[in-house]
Amino acid sequence: MLFIIGLGLSDEKDITIKGLEAIKSCERIYLEAYTSILMVSQEKLEELYGKKLILADREMVESQSDDILLNADKINVAFLVVGDPFGATTHADLIIRAKELLIPIQTIHNASIMNAVGACGLQLYNFGQTISIPFFTDNWRPDSFYDRIKENRNLGLHTLCLLDIKVKEQSIENLARGRKIYEFPRYMTINQAIMQLLEIEENRKQNAYTSETLAIGIARLGSLTEQIIKAGTLNQLLSEDFGPPLHSLIIVGNRMHILEADYIKYFVADKNKFDEIVKRDYKI
Amino acid sequence: MLFIIGLGLSDEKDITIKGLEAIKSCERIYLEAYTSILMVSQEKLEELYGKKLILADREMVESQSDDILLNADKINVAFLVVGDPFGATTHADLIIRAKELLIPIQTIHNASIMNAVGACGLQLYNFGQTISIPFFTDNWRPDSFYDRIKENRNLGLHTLCLLDIKVKEQSIENLARGRKIYEFPRYMTINQAIMQLLEIEENRKQNAYTSETLAIGIARLGSLTEQIIKAGTLNQLLSEDFGPPLHSLIIVGNRMHILEADYIKYFVADKNKFDEIVKRDYKI
Repeated sequence: MLFIIGLGLSDEKDITIKGLEAIKSCERIYLEAYTSILMVSQEKLEELYGKKLILADREMVESQSDDILLNADKINVAFLVVGDPFGATTHADLIIRAKELLIPIQTIHNASIMNAVGACGLQLYNFGQTISIPFFTDNWRPDSFYDRIKENRNLGLHTLCLLDIKVKEQSIENLARGRKIYEFPRYMTINQAIMQLLEIEENRKQNAYTSETLAIGIARLGSLTEQIIKAGTLNQLLSEDFGPPLHSLIIVGNRMHILEADYIKYFVADKNKFDEIVKRDYKI
Repeated sequence: MLFIIGLGLSDEKDITIKGLEAIKSCERIYLEAYTSILMVSQEKLEELYGKKLILADREMVESQSDDILLNADKINVAFLVVGDPFGATTHADLIIRAKELLIPIQTIHNASIMNAVGACGLQLYNFGQTISIPFFTDNWRPDSFYDRIKENRNLGLHTLCLLDIKVKEQSIENLARGRKIYEFPRYMTINQAIMQLLEIEENRKQNAYTSETLAIGIARLGSLTEQIIKAGTLNQLLSEDFGPPLHSLIIVGNRMHILEADYIKYFVADKNKFDEIVKRDYKI
């Protein structure tokens, strides 16, 4: 049996009882470690599970999936994913491969940013499509997600922006020379995301949003002690400090309901400005 | 402290370790029992928790929230929600009331239909706004969600349809006479939802979808043994038996990716018809 188990958002205790029981039945346990991160170390997880983990990086999951699945028709194997297993495309690949090999699969779900984002006070019903914002480089400044934001905003819907994570990446030079030397992990901050968003609007000029558009920054969602949620204009959030990763950003759509505005107000520093913008831009 | 704790999707073991530890610290534990259901009895939960639960119906949550919150500034109180706490508006009300009373709040997240729906093989990124389909009555046949589906479909996005639940409802007669006699619980089936959708399309004729549009029916999502996922045209799913509640329906958008189609194929009975429709209607 292949168990695909969501670990939830924050620390070792976010796993479900069902997930923990499944892990204890497994002979090999892989931890997917490149699409998201928990706020605790691998050792903490191993201590709770009473088992050693095998770290699975992108290369292993994408090119050695048959190693992960080895004998999983006879023994139990676990593949652990931060959040819920169905956050990232790559795991669909692994599941399809397991199906081809006729390996039985059980999925154990958990919270992920895709539903826990409701903690910011916006209704999940009022979100449009989710987008990912990749790190700009000197000569690669992709902006196709701008069209997605615009589509959502035209309908008055909120946009959840997932921010880029670079874990175990090689520099172009090291990649070219086949040297397995990896860069330090990088996690996009809310501030970086906003800078990129404003640069794109500056170029595209289709008014998908402005520096005065309401947004919500969320850091370390799901942590009982470290979670931060702040709301304000993109311009206001640009200078806020959200601390360590992970960060996410929501661009508020103007179909916002009065109950949503009431709730968000708790996360706003400048309440007068908030009221003024809500009055001006939102259909409340 | 007020703990708002998600129970996940299926049975008593879907709670997180963090959630279970919080419950064990609480003096009063409320179970929200009207926006969704687990597939196990209240007794099963009480056995695992080692605590008695207080059933909280809509009336209690909406009009007696101060009773729920009583002394929660001094003692620990838990409010348990099937899925994740931020699925339904009513809990935002409870949290806002707790904030007004300066009661500290901790939220413990879990899986909900809003993220676990990824199990059907469609990418969460490609979903538009989520809609709810209410039961039609003889003289109340609301169809405002039709416009939402159309907005999603115009962008090529998938639509998650949450299907109505009627728990502890009074008949109009009993309500008028103030008699606290309640109807049997009712849960909309995928078949009923499709019938209503086709009736609305018949009336509105704006081609938001047709009986030939691809859809996916999901029953008892998250159950390791009872989950059913079936894909096909709305017309094909109309005659499928999905068994006991809860049911959900997804209308597939035509921006469907080839990887999504590959995955969905595992849930299709009539693979030839599926290939034919994908070729005809989808941008693959």
